[in-house]
This record gives sequence, C-alpha cells and structure tokens, in this order.
Amino acid sequence: MSVLIVGSTALDSIKTPYAHNPRLLGGSASHAAVAASFFAPVKLVGIVGEDFPKRYVQLYHKHNIDLEGLQIAPGKTFHWSGEYEVNMNNRRTLTTELGVFETFTPILPKSYQNSQFVLLANIAPGLQQHVLNQMRRPKFIVADTMDLWLNIALKDLLKLLRHVDGFVLNESEARQLVNEDNLVRAAKKIHKLGPKYVIVKKGEHGAILSSPSGIFLSPAFPLHSVKDPTGAGDSFVGGMMGYLSTAPGPIDKNLRRAMIYGSVVASFCCEGFGLNATTRVTRAAIEKRATELKAMTHWKS
Amino acid sequence: MSVLIVGSTALDSIKTPYAHNPRLLGGSASHAAVAASFFAPVKLVGIVGEDFPKRYVQLYHKHNIDLEGLQIAPGKTFHWSGEYEVNMNNRRTLTTELGVFETFTPILPKSYQNSQFVLLANIAPGLQQHVLNQMRRPKFIVADTMDLWLNIALKDLLKLLRHVDGFVLNESEARQLVNEDNLVRAAKKIHKLGPKYVIVKKGEHGAILSSPSGIFLSPAFPLHSVKDPTGAGDSFVGGMMGYLSTAPGPIDKNLRRAMIYGSVVASFCCEGFGLNATTRVTRAAIEKRATELKAMTHWKS
Repeated sequence: MSVLIVGSTALDSIKTPYAHNPRLLGGSASHAAVAASFFAPVKLVGIVGEDFPKRYVQLYHKHNIDLEGLQIAPGKTFHWSGEYEVNMNNRRTLTTELGVFETFTPILPKSYQNSQFVLLANIAPGLQQHVLNQMRRPKFIVADTMDLWLNIALKDLLKLLRHVDGFVLNESEARQLVNEDNLVRAAKKIHKLGPKYVIVKKGEHGAILSSPSGIFLSPAFPLHSVKDPTGAGDSFVGGMMGYLSTAPGPIDKNLRRAMIYGSVVASFCCEGFGLNATTRVTRAAIEKRATELKAMTHWKS
Repeated sequence: MSVLIVGSTALDSIKTPYAHNPRLLGGSASHAAVAASFFAPVKLVGIVGEDFPKRYVQLYHKHNIDLEGLQIAPGKTFHWSGEYEVNMNNRRTLTTELGVFETFTPILPKSYQNSQFVLLANIAPGLQQHVLNQMRRPKFIVADTMDLWLNIALKDLLKLLRHVDGFVLNESEARQLVNEDNLVRAAKKIHKLGPKYVIVKKGEHGAILSSPSGIFLSPAFPLHSVKDPTGAGDSFVGGMMGYLSTAPGPIDKNLRRAMIYGSVVASFCCEGFGLNATTRVTRAAIEKRATELKAMTHWKS
C-alpha cells in the first residue's frame, strides 16, 4: 500500500555552532517522504520552483518517490534558513522566503486519489484540507502541524481536525491548542476536537500516543551526537505512516510499532545535516536500531 | 534485607500557584525512607531539632523506619521553603534555615554498620563519605546529590564517587559535572569517575540508566495532576533501593525493575504535598501502577 504525503518541499540553509550548510533539500514533505520510503512506495504532493536542483529530483527518484503530484512552477523554491544554539534544542528562523509556495494549490493526480494512507505533513491547514477534499475514502489520515498555524490559521486547523484520524503536534503546541499545561489532560481535550489518535512529540524525550487502547510512551533513540535535528519530527511521522501502510491488521495493533520505526528513522535524521544521514540508511540498519531500542526500554516483571 | 538511608530530615514549607503548605515533613532521607519502606525495612540516619513534631516521628514508625540513627539535637529542625511556578518544573528557594544541620555529624549505631544496601541520599558529600567510613562491607552503595554540592563541594563529591556503585543525578547536574551537553556521552564520562551505574533523572521524562549491560530508558508514570513534585527524585531512589534490597539475584538483573518501582513511588509522591500522598499508598497500588506502566511502554516486534 502506498502513502500519499503532502507538505512543504524546500531548500534549507542550516547553521549550527559547528557548521553551515546552505540549500539542503528540506521541507516537511521531503523528510516525511524519504522516511516513509524505507517501508512503502510514496506519492508526493508539493511545489518547487525552477531553481530546484536536479540532484534533489534524483534523490526523490532514488527513494522511489512518485513525483506526479510535484508541481514545478515559475519562480523560486521555498527557502528557509535557521540557526541552532549549542544544545540543539533551541533554534531561530533567520529568513523565510515563500517563493512559489505563496500561490500553491495542491492538485491531486488521478492516480493519487484512491490512496489509503494519507499524511498531511506540516503545511497550512487550509492546504491540508484541500488535499483531503480531492480524495475518495482514505483508510487512515494523519495531520502534523506547527505553532505558526495555531497562531494565524486556528479556524482552518480546527475544521481540519474534525476530518483526521490522527493528529501529531509537539508539547508546547498541545498545551497552546487546548490551553492545558498537563499533557495527559491536553491529549484528552484534543481528542474532543476530532482525532482518535493524538501523538505529542517531545523531541529527545520521545512521544506520547493517546488512543482508544490507552497511552503509549514512545521512546527516542539515545544519540551520542546530534548534528542537525531539522526534519526529525517529519521523519518520525513519515516513518510511522510508511510502516503503518504496510502492516497487516488493525491500526490499533500496529501503531506502537509504527511509532518505534518512525522514532528510529528520526534518530538517523538527527545524525546528519538535512537529509544527508537519512538517505544513507538501510532497512537493515533501521531494524537493528529498533531491536536496540526495544532492549533499552523493556523489562521483566 | 534492610536499607540504610542517610540524608536530610527537614520541615518543608511549599508554595504552589494553588496552595501553601507550611512545615510538612520533608528532606531527602524522609522521602527516600518512606518510599523504600514499601519494600524493605529502613534504617534512618539523620538529625532533627527539639521542635520536630511528634506526629512525624509517628509517621516514621508507621512505616517501620528504624530511628536509632536519628539524632535529636538542641535547636531547630532544618527548614526549607520554596515556591513552584505554574508548570511545576521551575522552583525557587525562598529560605533555607539549616538549624541543627549546621553541626551534624552522622554517627552509625552498631546495628546499622553491617547494612548491605546503602543509600546516600542528597546531603553534603563529606557527610555521605563519613557514613561510608563507618560501615563494614556494604553490597551496594548508591549516592544522590544536588547542584549545590557540585558548586561548593566538588572535591568531596569526586572523592566520594570513587567509593560508590551507583550515582544518581539530574540532567543539568550531569552536564555540569563533566562539562558535556550530550547525556549519553556525559554518562560515559561519569563512569570514569567511579560509579558502575549512572542514573540521570529527567523528571517527568523519566530517567536513563547507563550500566555494564547497556542503557535503560526508564519511563515516568504520566500523571493527570501534579500537586507538588518536591521529593519525587528522593522517592525514586528510595523506592529503587528498597526494592533492590529484597530482590534475589544480581543487581544487573534487578535494577531495571527497581527503577520502575522507584518511578512509580515517585509518581504517587507528586500527587500530594510533601509526603501526604506517598504515606497513603499501598503495595497493591504500587504493583497496579507498575503493571500499567509496563502496558504503556512495551510493544510487540
């Protein structure tokens, strides 16, 4: 089963205290798509400008990502630049040049409209909704978001939440969305907005799933070295949805394992700039780390 | 097997945005001793003043805590007061009145000197060392600490670390002690200072154990409501050492489970002011929460 992924396709210029890497392949859809590609075929929906480097198209191809839904428009590719502090937890945006994203309207090719697994990666909730409107009857829809949309497009986001099965957001966004400091209570309130599955991302501390079958505390793989955490959250949901689309049986039965695979791909993402480390990963390396993560979290009672 | 616990025995006045509770029973040794008492008999080493309320002595008795090593000295009991912010993660000390603690020299009764499990709860490292010096050959020694000792008694602490099996400290203390931001690398550096087992506490995010048999990511029990986190870290090590002292077989085999029990007792601690919630807990309630925590963290591969 393939996964349809819509989101941003961008060029990222990333500064850390140790290095500066201009115009890397980035954007929520790029990270999510590559992460998902280790498990399932991916159909990408996005937009790039005429300046989009050929080598990045080749990189998508290398990962068997279907690009029929990738628009190439006159103008410049969305460009984001940001800078991380020493501990890699705080980052600030230096510049955001929307380019062709300013007028983006996602259009789904016919071959995409029957997709069963849909990941609405981080992008304006109005655009996420527009993708959903073009689909037949997907089996499982997950939306990601960011604080910006809570601030400037809350109405669109709340409308979208009534139509998704799963919703992914980080700790501070969860607190802000329902005005609730306690995360367990915040997740309960978010369920009431629509999503059956609420996943709160906590970065290096893992993620919490709140679902009909209870809470799951999903661990993050402990890393010796973090080079660039950009895209880790997108890799997490991408890997999760990729695995989920291939796992036989009900979602409830597979979602924990899917989050673990997502978490493992996210850990590789952090070990290189942009997609540099992720694209070098093999399925075998992912399986190895998933086994290690199990050994680090399970105990005998 | 009993556990010997030395640390502070104090009166805590705690303010949160929701309540103010003066002169609660507190201190690292009090929290650790009550937590350990659910699993094993406890021998307490500490000091209180003549103002120490009788009801707190009765509370120790109720938990079968041996008080032969508790000195009652002329003067006032150590009194700490502090205030928490809304999210309960940040607290500031309002006053610290050392009282009888100023001249405390821990003296071990004969009946304590053969104890096999020793918890050096948070107190000046010089005093922790002084307790160790009076012991025969304990089987397993764990020390806890706080940032204050890193700042004003680092030399004593480094000396102590050469003589303990396990060392417990929080994230920021681990980073400060070995000047290393990455926690996995920090734990490795701390091993070189002596301890075979390094446990880094991360509050609501659980704890990380680094040991000869690898890393264990110990979860924190997700709470719907946190009333007062004071003493949670002490409850964690107390519960851990209490359980460990009763578990047959090698430390390596039991330590993960011991951390889970510690984490569960710590979760109860947070649900009431001071020791109010902890003292109401039953072993059955602890077992129930440990089972729930397993259900929230395990997955099938």
